[in-house]
Amino acid sequence: MTLRASNQACFRLDLAYDGTDFHGWQAQPGQRTVQGLLQDALLRLLRSEIAVEGAGRTDAGVHAIGQVASFHATTEREPEWLQHALRSVLPADLHVARASLASAEFSARRSAVARTYRYRMRRGPHVFWRRYCLQVSPDLQVDAMREAAAVFIGDHDFTAFAASAAGDRCQCLVERASVLERGPWVDFDVTANRFVHNMVRRVTGALLEVGMGRRTAADLEAILRSHDRARGGPCLAPQGLFLVGVRYPGDPRVEPELYSGFGWND
Amino acid sequence: MTLRASNQACFRLDLAYDGTDFHGWQAQPGQRTVQGLLQDALLRLLRSEIAVEGAGRTDAGVHAIGQVASFHATTEREPEWLQHALRSVLPADLHVARASLASAEFSARRSAVARTYRYRMRRGPHVFWRRYCLQVSPDLQVDAMREAAAVFIGDHDFTAFAASAAGDRCQCLVERASVLERGPWVDFDVTANRFVHNMVRRVTGALLEVGMGRRTAADLEAILRSHDRARGGPCLAPQGLFLVGVRYPGDPRVEPELYSGFGWND
Repeated sequence: MTLRASNQACFRLDLAYDGTDFHGWQAQPGQRTVQGLLQDALLRLLRSEIAVEGAGRTDAGVHAIGQVASFHATTEREPEWLQHALRSVLPADLHVARASLASAEFSARRSAVARTYRYRMRRGPHVFWRRYCLQVSPDLQVDAMREAAAVFIGDHDFTAFAASAAGDRCQCLVERASVLERGPWVDFDVTANRFVHNMVRRVTGALLEVGMGRRTAADLEAILRSHDRARGGPCLAPQGLFLVGVRYPGDPRVEPELYSGFGWND
Repeated sequence: MTLRASNQACFRLDLAYDGTDFHGWQAQPGQRTVQGLLQDALLRLLRSEIAVEGAGRTDAGVHAIGQVASFHATTEREPEWLQHALRSVLPADLHVARASLASAEFSARRSAVARTYRYRMRRGPHVFWRRYCLQVSPDLQVDAMREAAAVFIGDHDFTAFAASAAGDRCQCLVERASVLERGPWVDFDVTANRFVHNMVRRVTGALLEVGMGRRTAADLEAILRSHDRARGGPCLAPQGLFLVGVRYPGDPRVEPELYSGFGWND
């Protein structure tokens, strides 16, 4: 435990949530949101209005396994107390995996150097998984998707795959983009320094078109270079998308410890 | 395909469903039930009132991976057509894994020689699993539970573990009762020729008390022999319970093919 000179502290929260019943991350009046619930809980526990920042602003229905949040608070409370107290007051679909102290200048959003998302697809029916994946055809050509995914690796302008309302800053450095196959599952994992709104869902949509034989890797390359929002892939349903983890300087892995134990491999 | 002399046929349906949003198996006016939805779908598809019978009457919130249903219908339709048509009209949380023809005397309920249920527990938090298991303490003594589970094997009167409203016929032949541990999961699997209402949830409740050090295997044996409904274990929450499979004469396995692919090992 770091000794603190004053009682102003910066806290980091590692979070997992089931996006099904959330109207996304960002607090909005009258909506059930992750940021809103956290801020309400902190108001109740620390008796002050606290602005909580998140590494990724997940949309309605999008899940998180390794979301990171941060906030500053004037309190003598230890992070262990906070972790326990938050777990007691938050609902079962929003879990604080860890509360810890961070350095005063830490910002969950601005300090992040990379984020990893996973888009999950499942071939065939999926009674118990329908909230956590997109059902796809059993005939999907996964090898073609795997080859096409490589098109996105590198420093690219992702305007073609951005939401129509996304801003102009669409340059993203993608360090990993891979399609994984395991039994009925087909996962698209992507790690980048930043993401544009709807980017993962639209890139996966384009890959799915490749898997269905409607487009080729060369088509995706041409679309990427066109910077034409009308040409990017369809925006897939939110329930397949997971924010898997966030990497900070000095931390070699994108996937935090809590990656395992939250559902897909056990 | 069997040629049918008349157009009166007996159909078998192998079903999986997520019990979360069902008010159980049995049709009830104004309630969303599995039997009700199946009968409504058959009325729409075959244009006649058809009584559908289930091998196990699952309670509200209880899931099924290998439920079996049967019904008689006067139709020229083939089971392949029926399987496809039912999949088209039924919601995503009720899946017809297979529709097939059965012999005229087949009854999903009366022909069954054994049923297998699984009660799932998970140690620690479970954001994405909370609808499909009971969260339990990480300190659970699983070895003690495993030893105690053996108490239930054999031909016993389960009155002590029956619901208060259950009938007097509480004699059940349990051929398997085992506690399985895998990572954070603790599963209680039980196979018997028949089950009394609430039996699996109350037996698992008693095993959980053993796992928490509150009771011993000898206590459970004494409770079983007491035939005293007030002494059996607490009735655990329905969301941990799965009807895994039903065995019929000539079929060596309780677990049907569809056991895999429905969620827990992939």
